[in-house]
Amino acid sequence: MKDHYGQLISSLAGENEKKIVLLVLDGIGDTNNDGKGTALQMASTPNMDKLATRSATGLAHPVGPGITPGSGPGHLGLFGYDPLIYQIGRGVLSALGIEFPLEKGDVAARLNFCTMDKDGKVTDRRAGRISTEKNRELIEKIHNGIDIQDAEVFLNTESEHRALLVLRGEGLKADAGDTDPQETGKEPLDPTRPPFENSRTAKIVKTLFNQVREILQDEHPANMLLSRGFAQLPDWPSFEERYKLRPAAVAGHPMYRGIARLLGMEVFAEPVKPREILEDTLKALNTYTFVFSHFKDPDKKGEDGSIEGKIEAIEAMDEALPLLTDRNPDVLIITGDHSSPAPLKSHSWHPVPVLLNAPATRGPYQGSFDEVQCLKGELGMIKAMEIMTLAMAHAGKLQKFGA
Amino acid sequence: MKDHYGQLISSLAGENEKKIVLLVLDGIGDTNNDGKGTALQMASTPNMDKLATRSATGLAHPVGPGITPGSGPGHLGLFGYDPLIYQIGRGVLSALGIEFPLEKGDVAARLNFCTMDKDGKVTDRRAGRISTEKNRELIEKIHNGIDIQDAEVFLNTESEHRALLVLRGEGLKADAGDTDPQETGKEPLDPTRPPFENSRTAKIVKTLFNQVREILQDEHPANMLLSRGFAQLPDWPSFEERYKLRPAAVAGHPMYRGIARLLGMEVFAEPVKPREILEDTLKALNTYTFVFSHFKDPDKKGEDGSIEGKIEAIEAMDEALPLLTDRNPDVLIITGDHSSPAPLKSHSWHPVPVLLNAPATRGPYQGSFDEVQCLKGELGMIKAMEIMTLAMAHAGKLQKFGA
Repeated sequence: MKDHYGQLISSLAGENEKKIVLLVLDGIGDTNNDGKGTALQMASTPNMDKLATRSATGLAHPVGPGITPGSGPGHLGLFGYDPLIYQIGRGVLSALGIEFPLEKGDVAARLNFCTMDKDGKVTDRRAGRISTEKNRELIEKIHNGIDIQDAEVFLNTESEHRALLVLRGEGLKADAGDTDPQETGKEPLDPTRPPFENSRTAKIVKTLFNQVREILQDEHPANMLLSRGFAQLPDWPSFEERYKLRPAAVAGHPMYRGIARLLGMEVFAEPVKPREILEDTLKALNTYTFVFSHFKDPDKKGEDGSIEGKIEAIEAMDEALPLLTDRNPDVLIITGDHSSPAPLKSHSWHPVPVLLNAPATRGPYQGSFDEVQCLKGELGMIKAMEIMTLAMAHAGKLQKFGA
Repeated sequence: MKDHYGQLISSLAGENEKKIVLLVLDGIGDTNNDGKGTALQMASTPNMDKLATRSATGLAHPVGPGITPGSGPGHLGLFGYDPLIYQIGRGVLSALGIEFPLEKGDVAARLNFCTMDKDGKVTDRRAGRISTEKNRELIEKIHNGIDIQDAEVFLNTESEHRALLVLRGEGLKADAGDTDPQETGKEPLDPTRPPFENSRTAKIVKTLFNQVREILQDEHPANMLLSRGFAQLPDWPSFEERYKLRPAAVAGHPMYRGIARLLGMEVFAEPVKPREILEDTLKALNTYTFVFSHFKDPDKKGEDGSIEGKIEAIEAMDEALPLLTDRNPDVLIITGDHSSPAPLKSHSWHPVPVLLNAPATRGPYQGSFDEVQCLKGELGMIKAMEIMTLAMAHAGKLQKFGA
């Protein structure tokens, strides 16, 4: 698919020194918790509420009605990159998640330790969720045992049964078949099956896994590795190219730093707590014209099913917020990359509340920042990928379209 | 056009035993009847109103603002098939409307009896709207008189001047020109005109209509047939393929059963009255994971211009509704395929109210199910083709997009 929208925005983008802050409250959206309301409705958030009385508000669909995004699509949407066009391969996402310094041309894949029986059939695709420590030990054993000539092989522990494979070498492509059969009772798949029969990468993968099988044969329960999602770093227009902004990321978790780096943002700081996040944001504003600031806790608590925890996380950010609002950035956006309703204990499809503070708003203004009030705000229901366009417009960085 | 949206949904769809009911109140949307309000606003609907207090609500555009859909696009949209991509040919729609058992490869066309003068010019494209009985008599006469070698010919009465032509034979294509000149004072068109000059189907059609002309030459006013919309059964992904649902249709009218069958739904029952529709829906829920239940009356009354009749139809369905809501299907959607405002006596473009009852809603909740309250609901303004995506999400049948 061609990115007509992105090309349009890029062609209109102009440079000035106005500052844009995108504060992402991860997983902020909620459902109604058995009639008690959403986390944002229940939380005491005097600072966000006050901001709402002079901000444009609305709701944004991360991808579209009913579609639940992962962190990748959720953030790409917020950055204005159509998540249906810009899809990050599984292997690359895994690399971003542990900040493996992936280089152009590297081929990455997600690995699972698994259990195989004597007939070579997979009996547990997660090897009983072995400990991260055991994972490290086995990865080292494999590293010491393998002998691959045609490529450099990097094996990296993620956590529990999860690991990352990276192959580095001249002219490798992401053209190997997943070996993960996706169900138990089956043998691992052949990575060189059609259409991969002439792929050099697939042949290396095959040799590698044959060696892994021998090296792990006496281990239990983790006696084999499965791979999926062979992928290379995409060649996408950078954030700076697209918007003529100098972008920085303030993010305490590797996955979000990784996505930011993928678009060429500088990682400025890695704080996790509200006060530190906002202090680092202020520092970044001295140099950069765009700061993406990421706060993970609402998502973590939502996924844990802890509505109290989610409320607490929101209130902690609200309490710190004046640090940032007192500085009055030219455009301040507060939103989420997706909803993580506590009752669902997972990401969900529900649209996220958006607050955009800037001088040229119109109203109606709301007395509270939450999903229900935002529905009545001036932005209406938009797509997450339109938020950056609005930010650019409010910062006076987007020229007129046509004469 | 490639169906990227449908492919995305299909790639995310997973199976579970949760049940989805799509209750279609045909033509439900209305305008404001000289300030008295819409039919839904005027009707007494305590059960739907109660349901609205704990449901997601919104408005859906069947196709888009200002675009009035026929029954085909209206329902395809509700089933999540983009009506701009999935277009049913006129001939096939006619076949569905009388439940002609169309087979793959058959070529169908809509026929009109017409009146032709001595010079061969059409003077009335509907032959004075002859009676359905006369239509039957003439169809039999033609059937007995024709002699076509290369294909089986089926001629079927619809009603009044309307009939259906089906050609069956090896390798036929829907490549014949309409013979209906679309205006009086002109001769019927040649079905073999360019680009149809080498079409076997077009040649058969030409021979057929030459014979019809002779057979009917002494009849009046219906002394000829006009044809339009040559079409074949489309090769579309089935509903089951797309959603991994086991779908059933409960529909008292042939057209709706036909559209359901076109997507591979089983026709479970053919009731027309509210109580029977809901009872059959309950029975279908024992076996199927998706039930499409169709209620025709609001559309019929709207097209008759009877606001009282439309209100009565709505109230009858509301009275029966507890039959279904007491069973509490996992996801219940109540909506329409299009609006049929009584003041307009026809289908219209106005968006339709949508109610989605399921556990993971957010609010704001409305105290009444009608077009005006739905505008304030959490779903906002969506496209009809997004309703199935929401239903799938709420039923936990849609995996996360991206990681």
